Amino acid sequence: MPRQQNGEVQRHTFAVLVENQFGVLGRITGLFSARGFNIESLSVAETEDPSVSRITLVTAGDDMILEQVNKQLNRLIDVIKVTDLSEEPHVDREMVLIKVNTEDFRRAEVFRIGEIFRAKIVDVTAKTYVLEVTGDEGKIGAVIDLLKPLGIKEIVRTGKIAIGRGQGAM
Amino acid sequence: MPRQQNGEVQRHTFAVLVENQFGVLGRITGLFSARGFNIESLSVAETEDPSVSRITLVTAGDDMILEQVNKQLNRLIDVIKVTDLSEEPHVDREMVLIKVNTEDFRRAEVFRIGEIFRAKIVDVTAKTYVLEVTGDEGKIGAVIDLLKPLGIKEIVRTGKIAIGRGQGAM
Repeated sequence: MPRQQNGEVQRHTFAVLVENQFGVLGRITGLFSARGFNIESLSVAETEDPSVSRITLVTAGDDMILEQVNKQLNRLIDVIKVTDLSEEPHVDREMVLIKVNTEDFRRAEVFRIGEIFRAKIVDVTAKTYVLEVTGDEGKIGAVIDLLKPLGIKEIVRTGKIAIGRGQGAM
Repeated sequence: MPRQQNGEVQRHTFAVLVENQFGVLGRITGLFSARGFNIESLSVAETEDPSVSRITLVTAGDDMILEQVNKQLNRLIDVIKVTDLSEEPHVDREMVLIKVNTEDFRRAEVFRIGEIFRAKIVDVTAKTYVLEVTGDEGKIGAVIDLLKPLGIKEIVRTGKIAIGRGQGAM
């Protein structure tokens, strides 16, 4: 996707490979807060190499801010590589756990919505289900909107993770 | 689970509800690095209330360190609530995207492993699949171990998220 050269605010997804050094996450989030850049969501976990972690972070800003984010991240000592995935074809997915009220008439409807969205039911009580749903932002938003009127008790989201399409690796 | 009163290192999963204020993630990760506490994985995203975010973080330490983590998090101004989910029955899950080599004889085996683990195939090329797998730590570890000899090109993990079992909410 060509970068737009205007002041419009866009949301971008960055993948950042870092040395799994003590305090590296603090240095990255510190960079964002020191410069007034916002982090919408962030996930960090080990890669197949336990000495390397991968951070996926979603930030919003105009063209100049996004360029600054990229540049400043690259300057950090523990950062191995930064990729702005919004600039290339990629798959992005999120997982959410939703605890929803299933009392009375609601149970059948919650179950049906779960089936439609290929959710897994990962906990059941007499009055609640916990649904696990994965998908892109649109799908996650849609299932939450459908369940909301039935009574959502708790939501936990992972934040977005993303991987480039095609055969290459980052 | 009763907390063990000894110096043994344990891994605990904390759920932290925070006001969605600028820089809050930096203050939390800063707290960990300032005190020498390690963060193994961290996920942060909005809840159903857009002014509140929920952070799931996994940390390791002995009893004294874990108590300190809990206490210090509670002292931060934007923190609404801290729950040590390891102390109560909970479901924990992680999502992983795995780009794996499917050349020659490998394709049928990758497909079979995907079926066994109820993976979704979210991208396909002539030489690779991207599998999406969700599950607890054991399941994620098992699928990675099985795919490794076939040739993993890239792994992206969300880090663990967790929700209490039963009808209550945090």
